[in-house]
Amino acid sequence: MTRRKFKFWGWGYADEHASHEERERLKDFYAQRFSVSQWDEVAPPVVGEIPLPASRISAPDTLAAISSNESEDRLIHSYGKSYPDSVRAFARQFPAPPDLIIRPRNENDVVAALDFADTVNAAVIPFGAGSSVVGGVETAVSGNFRAVISLNLQHLNRVLEVDPISRAARIQAGVLGPQLESQLKPHGLTLRHFPQSFEYSTLGGWIATRSGGHFATRLTHIDDLVESTRVVTPAGISESRRLPGSGAGPSPDRLFIGSEGILGVITEAWMRLQARPRFRASKSIRFTDWQQATEAVRVLSQADLYPSNCRLIDSEEAVTTGSGDGKAHILIIAFENADHAPDAKMQRALEIVAQYGGQWQTETLESPNAHHSGEAGAWRNAFIRAPFYREVLTGMGVMYDTFETAITWERFPDFHANLIDTTRRIIREVTGKDGSVSCRFSHVYPDGPAPYFSFYALPKRGAELAQWYEIKNAVSDALIAAGGTITHHHAVGRDHRRWYDLQRPEPFATGLRAIKRALDPNGLLNPGVLIDP
Amino acid sequence: MTRRKFKFWGWGYADEHASHEERERLKDFYAQRFSVSQWDEVAPPVVGEIPLPASRISAPDTLAAISSNESEDRLIHSYGKSYPDSVRAFARQFPAPPDLIIRPRNENDVVAALDFADTVNAAVIPFGAGSSVVGGVETAVSGNFRAVISLNLQHLNRVLEVDPISRAARIQAGVLGPQLESQLKPHGLTLRHFPQSFEYSTLGGWIATRSGGHFATRLTHIDDLVESTRVVTPAGISESRRLPGSGAGPSPDRLFIGSEGILGVITEAWMRLQARPRFRASKSIRFTDWQQATEAVRVLSQADLYPSNCRLIDSEEAVTTGSGDGKAHILIIAFENADHAPDAKMQRALEIVAQYGGQWQTETLESPNAHHSGEAGAWRNAFIRAPFYREVLTGMGVMYDTFETAITWERFPDFHANLIDTTRRIIREVTGKDGSVSCRFSHVYPDGPAPYFSFYALPKRGAELAQWYEIKNAVSDALIAAGGTITHHHAVGRDHRRWYDLQRPEPFATGLRAIKRALDPNGLLNPGVLIDP
Repeated sequence: MTRRKFKFWGWGYADEHASHEERERLKDFYAQRFSVSQWDEVAPPVVGEIPLPASRISAPDTLAAISSNESEDRLIHSYGKSYPDSVRAFARQFPAPPDLIIRPRNENDVVAALDFADTVNAAVIPFGAGSSVVGGVETAVSGNFRAVISLNLQHLNRVLEVDPISRAARIQAGVLGPQLESQLKPHGLTLRHFPQSFEYSTLGGWIATRSGGHFATRLTHIDDLVESTRVVTPAGISESRRLPGSGAGPSPDRLFIGSEGILGVITEAWMRLQARPRFRASKSIRFTDWQQATEAVRVLSQADLYPSNCRLIDSEEAVTTGSGDGKAHILIIAFENADHAPDAKMQRALEIVAQYGGQWQTETLESPNAHHSGEAGAWRNAFIRAPFYREVLTGMGVMYDTFETAITWERFPDFHANLIDTTRRIIREVTGKDGSVSCRFSHVYPDGPAPYFSFYALPKRGAELAQWYEIKNAVSDALIAAGGTITHHHAVGRDHRRWYDLQRPEPFATGLRAIKRALDPNGLLNPGVLIDP
Repeated sequence: MTRRKFKFWGWGYADEHASHEERERLKDFYAQRFSVSQWDEVAPPVVGEIPLPASRISAPDTLAAISSNESEDRLIHSYGKSYPDSVRAFARQFPAPPDLIIRPRNENDVVAALDFADTVNAAVIPFGAGSSVVGGVETAVSGNFRAVISLNLQHLNRVLEVDPISRAARIQAGVLGPQLESQLKPHGLTLRHFPQSFEYSTLGGWIATRSGGHFATRLTHIDDLVESTRVVTPAGISESRRLPGSGAGPSPDRLFIGSEGILGVITEAWMRLQARPRFRASKSIRFTDWQQATEAVRVLSQADLYPSNCRLIDSEEAVTTGSGDGKAHILIIAFENADHAPDAKMQRALEIVAQYGGQWQTETLESPNAHHSGEAGAWRNAFIRAPFYREVLTGMGVMYDTFETAITWERFPDFHANLIDTTRRIIREVTGKDGSVSCRFSHVYPDGPAPYFSFYALPKRGAELAQWYEIKNAVSDALIAAGGTITHHHAVGRDHRRWYDLQRPEPFATGLRAIKRALDPNGLLNPGVLIDP
């Protein structure tokens, strides 16, 4: 393995953890919130503790050099990084690890792996870096399979070609975010796609799951950055043309973007790049009134300004993330650009937010790196570190999770109140104690925001999973009934299937099922995700 | 019929024509170009001249009130508005008109019409306003059908609901551009989608064909303006959720956008609207060197400025359209906005073009309506009137046609030279005389332009169609071999099928075929377009 080893029971690499200081801060914060005097912590699992079923298949000679059924490897490929994944890991429950991990070195290996899987009737779970929070890479699949193979694309990690004239590059799908950016940097170019999982996710994963970057508007979704795709399907290799635009039938790329590994394995893509930003302006705005704050963001989103950051964080989330005192909602506005100073845009944005009661400290106005300091900096740090906190919290017995969606502006106030109320109520009903739910906007569009909710609760020890399902079900039911999408950028995976089935139009499902049967006639690819063939 | 009658043999309404002055100017211009002393004009056809085959089916009682098999109606629905359509109309050739035209008053009528078609084994050609230039609405279809029905959606012409908060509206698919904008205007909103066919095309047609508006960048393609769709398929009604963004599986809307009527009949869509622009800046720039001009546009397209207009017109096209003296290539740059003055953007754009030798008259800099006057205004007028000129030219015996594509910047110089050379050569080979080919950019993207080529030739009388096919084939072969798309915004229809078959990835075609079979099992919808089931 050329890649640093990932942690099998939590976020990031095996040697990365929350610091002692962070752990103590988390314990103090939640002790106060739940009136807990002493935490009864469960230690993270170690490999030797976990009994694993024997592998049901072994690699053929032709694939032996790139295959593994080593215990830790199987553990790493069993789960993604969701709350239920974390709970099951701490409970030492790994009943259905993959029988085999195959790591293709090239596209021929991918074809050979799919052929082998077909021969032995094994399900194939495409695996980028395993940061799915929706059960997208889970190897416990239903169906009549003899075995399950996790197909890890980590060796397909190169930028193969850079076109500086059109600003595009041909890139292998298994490349991690930092590997990708470090290969583009010498060319002065960037993909500028920074999901929260940036360090632990891959280009192929981003495309397969319709990943959203952390920028708030325009050129943040992977969908818009794809120029063409190359996908190995059981029915052959699909390669679209490099085109800046096309009106020739429904977009082939848009079929594979968001297909979550059920139609084929993305091996390469030509991606649209940007020059590295040189000009920046950033500002942190405080609002005391939530409705005024959301109105400000709505008007800002409709003003043809397209800020790179436009993150509204409610006062509750500001407290949880240490970026506010709980007295104000915080809106972080930023612009960045490789060609010209965004001053005029920032001035106009501030005029708008001022009309809705937004207030800011004038002295920070000119600081180009304000997003690294102050409230914005505190939030940014919490955002990057948050996934590491989950493994601390799970050990403590605290449930911490998020759900995210999108809704048009005119429905947002009721929608938001409904989801906040539903989440609070169900947490109290299920756990018998008050929890907390907060909201921020991860992305904003002229026709609506993408609200991102974070919640925590103190479930009963040993009943974490059952209580999480009760909460998740109630919240998702409310979200779908109120017109939202079951996911804005986390994907459907296995965890969101029930609500996805309610959301997608039935004739579209009929069509998707037909494509699935045509491209993957034996239904080996990521069974259980999106659609049943 | 509540709609003004369309011309069956040319562009626009039956009472609209090129003016006497326009006709004389065209005759003079092409007489000089082809050294013709006297034009031997063919008169446009009249209904009574044209023998029509008897209708093979008649409407059932339930549909009788909304059905027609009147002669002129059948003629109007026989063809779109392409050059071969024009030639066949002037030749009085209408061998395969629809047997019946059905005009649904509501969605139930659409369902009833599809049911009836299924009962009698009739092909169904969805018809918005018939401005297809690629054979997309042609009723001469192959296959074992008893009859052909043209399904004219003109009565579905209302804006049903306006959401001023999210800036969106629920709109029926049969609405014409001007009808749509006049219903939005009282709300201070606009769809701001202005294809050349604006007056003679419909929302449903735009969605079905991935229409491109006349704006050069961003929010010009109908794809990006669709919030959700409602589509009647033979397998049921598909309705997607109104969402500003979603990551739940491949986009259902993107499957129907560009489906060209083969999967279902689009009846409604929620569309993203914009406030009506209040601020404008426009500038006409002259370049003496084509390569410098294209470089200027490339850099401009990559500078995060997104001009509403960025139309580069080569010197040849400037002459043909009366917007230049042939000594310079003309770049029209414009910005418009509802929220703030675009002065800073225009200043930066001018800095960029100046670096590549672009020159402009300073006194027009401040004119917000410069796009209505001067070179830009002359071009704009020619652009709007050009489709009316075709019917004059066809009568004179002059072949006038266009083809359009897209290509990444790094390939553009060779691609452009190749297509210009190929078109000139094949015109000379086929017609024995020099013709002309010119190029403009209809749209520009950071990764490449959408070049739009116009050509004219003097074919042999009586051999217009055969000579056009020879030219079209040679040009399209070259375009596809050089990596372009067979269409950027005109659609595939029947005319581009041969090259679309080479362009789309084979597994995608397998998938599309599977969807087609699943949603339209008897293959009644627009047979011959995009894919054969």
